[in-house]
Parts: sequence; structure tokens; C-alpha cells
Amino acid sequence: MTDLDKLRVVLVATRNPLNIGAAARAMSNFGVMRLRVVNPYEVAFREARSAVGAARLLAQAEQYENVAEGVADCRLVVGTTAAIRRDLQQKTLRLEAGARTIKQKLKTGPVAILFGSERYGLSNEELSHCHWVMRVPTREAHGSMNLGQAVAVCLYELVRGRKMASVKAPLAEKKDARAKGAEIERLTQAMLEVLRTSGYVNPRKIAAEEKLRRLVRRMELHGNDAETLLGMMRQISWKLRAKENENA
Amino acid sequence: MTDLDKLRVVLVATRNPLNIGAAARAMSNFGVMRLRVVNPYEVAFREARSAVGAARLLAQAEQYENVAEGVADCRLVVGTTAAIRRDLQQKTLRLEAGARTIKQKLKTGPVAILFGSERYGLSNEELSHCHWVMRVPTREAHGSMNLGQAVAVCLYELVRGRKMASVKAPLAEKKDARAKGAEIERLTQAMLEVLRTSGYVNPRKIAAEEKLRRLVRRMELHGNDAETLLGMMRQISWKLRAKENENA
Repeated sequence: MTDLDKLRVVLVATRNPLNIGAAARAMSNFGVMRLRVVNPYEVAFREARSAVGAARLLAQAEQYENVAEGVADCRLVVGTTAAIRRDLQQKTLRLEAGARTIKQKLKTGPVAILFGSERYGLSNEELSHCHWVMRVPTREAHGSMNLGQAVAVCLYELVRGRKMASVKAPLAEKKDARAKGAEIERLTQAMLEVLRTSGYVNPRKIAAEEKLRRLVRRMELHGNDAETLLGMMRQISWKLRAKENENA
Repeated sequence: MTDLDKLRVVLVATRNPLNIGAAARAMSNFGVMRLRVVNPYEVAFREARSAVGAARLLAQAEQYENVAEGVADCRLVVGTTAAIRRDLQQKTLRLEAGARTIKQKLKTGPVAILFGSERYGLSNEELSHCHWVMRVPTREAHGSMNLGQAVAVCLYELVRGRKMASVKAPLAEKKDARAKGAEIERLTQAMLEVLRTSGYVNPRKIAAEEKLRRLVRRMELHGNDAETLLGMMRQISWKLRAKENENA
């Protein structure tokens, strides 16, 4: 098992099966075999063609209904963009620097890299599941990249300088105490409930949920701490509701 | 004029206009604007579609009947391959090393990078026009790359680490405004109060306060986030106490 086995490429809301195929081919070229698709436009994504040599990879791809599920087991979740987006609310790293961090994290646990739809890229809601965003250094005048090419370039940067041929050398698996995506999301939802009950958050405002999601991810919590905080939120929530019942 | 203006991407015997379009798009993304096609399968290569944002580049592409003419003005001619070819008669450099040499040469004169046909890559005859061959480090088990992706990866390596022209605007890169000790401590105390009121923490246990203090510090919060969280705690605290007063 190499570090790349812990990398998941997550295609979100991809519209064109050809692009899923192209992404799969690039993955196979660079030895990244775990593909996940979230809510692809064509449900029949397995029909993706043009994936020369990547049929098995496509057959083993996993399908998810939303981003939270697609990254539930990952300790680091990275969004991607090529265009320069003024609306980004998150830390952005250039590909060169981002890949360095990803390579470090892969030594200790699963990492997801998200690619958005061909037309719109990743939405702010989708990005709110990410710890930070990685940018391919394209020209400002023509930033928008083809999906398959973006995947190829990002994965190339990850294998750059690495010995490709015979893959062996199990690196000493360090345990990462970082909380997984699912734990972080549970905490986010518990906090949200407390904040709603206490009147801090207007339940109808979706932006508040995204803001909170980003905030919680910026904490880069360790698993134990996420669990502790979750326990706290549940207790607070219970107390708030208990009071309400007493008043009723 | 930048060094990249002296780079020519030469597509040899490309069969599929879609691939010419994809190559053009990647070129435009990375600021390489001089495309040459040698003996394309579809003479009507100008009809190449899928070249989002690269129409002008395609319109200005130059067509040649053979490799010799296509590279006549270049002082360095580099072939490309992704697959490992046992039949190569020339020096092969990995992309990382090859790109370094190309960047040096671009300071002094025009350089051509050749990409072969989708099916066969560059023939030995075509390669014989090249000074050496550059290899994209794909897996031996699946070396053959999609043409547009190969172009994207090679050009990315050439612009890698480079400041992109006309990119100035600070990306959403926020200043690392880590919260100060005093802010963190205010938050700690506010959390503690909420946890006591909700019955999570026994007020007489000092250890609980220390545990919480360490937990909050592990979050390495930014100043804004600490402030936001403090506001949340105050609201929750207010709500919990309001309920208590109602009950009293």
C-alpha cells in the first residue's frame, strides 16, 4: 500500500461522462485508483467512455449523494479551482504548495481532492466541506480549465519527482489523530442545533450553516477533541430543550 | 514578450479535432499561445471544438506538411512520450529535468515541443528531428496519456513556480491573524460558563477547566473565529440563563 492508495479523487456534479472517463484515465496514468463521484449529472456514470485503460478504475468508482458522505472518512479535504475566484471564503494555496501539504497528510490518513462541475466549479456550499482550496496557476485571462486536464495536472504535481515504476516500500504508517470528515460534520450539525435553539442562528439562513461549516474545519480538530466538543454540544442542546419543556 | 512566447507546441498527425481543441485550451490556460500542427488527420483542424476560450489561438495556429518545416526556426526540438518505449534511440529526460533545460533554452531562442498522434505517439522518423525526448512520469502499467492531458501536464511543468502574467490580485489568502492569548482565554471562560450552566462541567472540578483550556488552544483559532465563537457562547449562555430566570 502506497500513500497514493489513501488519496480519493472526488468529482462533484460532473455533467459529462466523457470528463469522468478522462479524469479516470489521468488517475490511472499517475497511479491514483480511488475515484468517487458525487451526484453526477448522468447517473449512468459507469458508461463513461474515453477512459483508455481505466475500465477497472471506473468499475470500482464509488457513488455518493452528497459531499459530506463522499468525504466522510477523510482527514483532509481539499477543494480545487483554476480560475481566480474573488468570492472564495477560504484559504487558497497554489498547487505547488498545496500538493506538498497533501503529500505530508497522505502519510497519516485518507485525503480527498474535490473537483467541481465543468461549468461552475465547486459551489460555496461544496467548498464549505473543504479545509482549504488549491489553485492551479493558470492565466488570469483564461483560468477555466478542462476537468480532465485539471485532474491530470493536480495528480502530476503529487507524483512529481517520485519514482513511478515498481511501487513497494510500505511507509511506516503514522497514526493521525485528525478528526474524520464524518466526525467533523456531526459536530457541525450539533453546533448548528445549539445555535438555532439559542437564537444565535436564524434557521432559515443557509449561509449560516456554510459559515459554521467552514469555521469548524478551520479548527483542524483532532479526533478526541471533536468527540469531546460533540459531547458538550449534546449536553448544551439537551439542557436548552429541557428548559423549553419545563416552560411548556 | 516573455520566454513563453518563444515556445511552440507542435502537434504531429493528430487525428481528432477535439484533441487539437483540448491542447489549445491547455496552452491558453498556461499562457503558451503558439500552436503548430503538422499533417493533421482532419485537414479542417480549425474546426477543432471544445477549445473553451482558445478560439483566437486556434485561428492563429500554423499548419505544416512535415516536421522539418514545423521546427525549422527552433534551436531546440523536444519530443514527448508518456509510455516507456524500449525502442527509443535518443536520450530521454523525465519531464521535471527536461522542463528545466527548456526554460534555460527559451531565454535564448525558440523551442519546439512535439506531441505525437493519439494512437502511436511520435514515430521514430518524427523523433529523429528531436534533440532529445521528454517523458511524463506515468505508471509503467498504464503509460499512454490522453493528448490534451499530456499537453496540459508538460506546459504546467514549464510554468510551475512561475508568477503568472497579469496575476496580481491577492488570492483570498488571508493574513494569518492568529488569535491572541487574551482572546483565547475570554473564549475559554465563556465556554466554561456555558458548560457549567448546562451541567456538562462540575463547577468544583478544576481539572475540567484546564482540560478545556488545552482543548481550545489546540484549535489554533484565528482572531475572527475566536471572536465569532465568543459571540456564540455569549448567546447560548444568555439563553440558558434566560430560561433559568423564567423558571425561577
